[in-house]
Amino acid sequence: MSDIIREKVHQASLILSELDIDLWLTLVRETTAARDPALELIYPHDLTWQSAMMIVPSGQHIAIVGHFEAEAARQTGLYPAVIPYHQSIREPLLEALTQLQPRRIAVNFSRNDSHADGLSHGMYQLLLDYLSGTQFAERLISAEGILRALRGRKTETEIHRIRAAIQKTEDIYQRTFEMLKPGMSEIEVAAFMHRQLTEEGLETAWEASHCPAVNAGPDSPVGHSSPTDIRIAAGQLLHFDFGVKLDGYCADIQRVVYVLKPQEEQPPAEVQRGFSTIVEAIEAARLALKPGVTGIQVDAIARNLLIERGYPEYKYATGHHLGRTVHDGAGILGPAWERYGDTPNYPIEVGQVYTLEPGLMLPDYGYIGLEEDVLVTEQETVYLSTPQKELILIRG
Amino acid sequence: MSDIIREKVHQASLILSELDIDLWLTLVRETTAARDPALELIYPHDLTWQSAMMIVPSGQHIAIVGHFEAEAARQTGLYPAVIPYHQSIREPLLEALTQLQPRRIAVNFSRNDSHADGLSHGMYQLLLDYLSGTQFAERLISAEGILRALRGRKTETEIHRIRAAIQKTEDIYQRTFEMLKPGMSEIEVAAFMHRQLTEEGLETAWEASHCPAVNAGPDSPVGHSSPTDIRIAAGQLLHFDFGVKLDGYCADIQRVVYVLKPQEEQPPAEVQRGFSTIVEAIEAARLALKPGVTGIQVDAIARNLLIERGYPEYKYATGHHLGRTVHDGAGILGPAWERYGDTPNYPIEVGQVYTLEPGLMLPDYGYIGLEEDVLVTEQETVYLSTPQKELILIRG
Repeated sequence: MSDIIREKVHQASLILSELDIDLWLTLVRETTAARDPALELIYPHDLTWQSAMMIVPSGQHIAIVGHFEAEAARQTGLYPAVIPYHQSIREPLLEALTQLQPRRIAVNFSRNDSHADGLSHGMYQLLLDYLSGTQFAERLISAEGILRALRGRKTETEIHRIRAAIQKTEDIYQRTFEMLKPGMSEIEVAAFMHRQLTEEGLETAWEASHCPAVNAGPDSPVGHSSPTDIRIAAGQLLHFDFGVKLDGYCADIQRVVYVLKPQEEQPPAEVQRGFSTIVEAIEAARLALKPGVTGIQVDAIARNLLIERGYPEYKYATGHHLGRTVHDGAGILGPAWERYGDTPNYPIEVGQVYTLEPGLMLPDYGYIGLEEDVLVTEQETVYLSTPQKELILIRG
Repeated sequence: MSDIIREKVHQASLILSELDIDLWLTLVRETTAARDPALELIYPHDLTWQSAMMIVPSGQHIAIVGHFEAEAARQTGLYPAVIPYHQSIREPLLEALTQLQPRRIAVNFSRNDSHADGLSHGMYQLLLDYLSGTQFAERLISAEGILRALRGRKTETEIHRIRAAIQKTEDIYQRTFEMLKPGMSEIEVAAFMHRQLTEEGLETAWEASHCPAVNAGPDSPVGHSSPTDIRIAAGQLLHFDFGVKLDGYCADIQRVVYVLKPQEEQPPAEVQRGFSTIVEAIEAARLALKPGVTGIQVDAIARNLLIERGYPEYKYATGHHLGRTVHDGAGILGPAWERYGDTPNYPIEVGQVYTLEPGLMLPDYGYIGLEEDVLVTEQETVYLSTPQKELILIRG
């Protein structure tokens, strides 16, 4: 079993103590089909029947699982008490609660954070049913505070894996830049990058149909859509959004190439100015990204820098957490849009890994979007990716 | 995009008409992390921001998605109206509902069926918030009836894919039986089967750590646990539970081998009697599996046959749906245990694919469990797997 789960379960105990929550209950079933994103942090297997993973500050965690999965649960060594059942989880669950007498029971629902919202509504109804008539029914709270901390604060092992995913991503980018030629289509470029992945047995960090995203020139649709037949042309920009998933951890990096025209020695001033603005916005956001600051503050710095220079406001957040998933839940470096709920107000903490990804469209040239991956440390926020500071140039 | 999703979206419209439900709303976000099992039936991509997939009987389906995913949604051709948004889904969602004026809005929550319970509790709270003060708040119902039909009734294409997964599974079983030798450990046997998968680029139908399950003799823990160091020995049974996932569809098959002792010409009578009982129980369940019958009735036939012959009652259901996931939601061929909710009462329908998998332990020899995959047709229920009717024998 992965050391990371052992680290995360230990970390969860400490977070429960810190937050003065005496029980964190992850209630799941049929996880091959319906996944609670919290489970992978605290248990290495799928679970079939209704199962209760009960994490407590003392480390005396309890797993209540279907009888045929008890042996696998015991073998993990993560849960000192493994309680199997046959017909219903109701009785063993109530017995465990009666023994623990938790004052607050944190469960995985959240309006704000998708990664703290793995409890399905039907399972929530079942839980209320099990608890009805007991003193525990009134003690349910959201586990979003626990999961924000547990997912956000990466362990050394997690950071090591993110670095490795970034390295692989940068290697493939480098090989791609070396083979790019005007006339190639976005689809051909993406196919080259997919072949690199296949040869190394790597996964994409998000859905392969738009990982990489490849945007040649201003007419290519930017966003989560697949590469098209549009071809790389001189005098235009070529934009990428790409990341590798390696050992369960993701990278997420955007890069920009300019295709020089035959007589051109350097990119047009308008392209250079747009590119420099994005580089500066990322650097300004990095410098602002400090423990205690909120995501909304960091977002505003990059966003306002673009607006002040006369560029349109981008319609997404400046950055997001990066980890086991490419959008790794918890807080966002974003504006106070209803779509983000309370997540832009979450404070920055040491050990968090974020993307920084402002962008702007130049209608004559194409999209300029860079995305760097950064780590918040005690002293400063450091780049994990090697930041792109100059336009990559190829000749038409 | 897969033809299956087109078939399933069309089928969903027909089911809505049949059930007199005028809107089925699948509300999701960040589906790379938190998966609603319904989404894969009606949409081929991940979705990031809160997204509303609205299926209606007329076929004039509506998708409300984050602006950067609108192009991908349009390209599917599945949703005649694709509505992008920037800051919040609230307004476009209410506008769409105001236009549609649904009398009932089915959403994906279910206490019974995990595969109809993909709406998270936090998203349910958000939905109630969006609908508060409108006439729609009172119109939410569970979509479990829709999803039971949609997942349960396999299309021709789906059945074709399940057959293909079964064929691959049986091929690997055959190669495994040919190379088995006493003295090999469960781990070695499982490794051989994994190599077959790797060579053909196939996935396991469930978590690879216990797919295959391999149980040599009576001391091996039967259930969802990994193969052990226990070795195949003469005079004992060897039990397998294994399935391949191919093109998104699963097989799930159990097989039993007996290892003859040097002087033995045939298995002991006790082993033969146990094996025949399981074969008969499966055949009895298959004959009982007819449209209109409930799962609880089918389960009782196999279960009681074992009990009448003096074997202990098995502590799981006789069978489950099989399809995109190995436990494919909807109804169960199982007893009225609280753990199964209402699902044993669901009626059998034409086009459903089930496993049949009674089992019994012989304390001196090991576990006898067979599992066959069957399809319910108008005329009769037919085997999709080639049923094991005789013990597979190897010599010690």
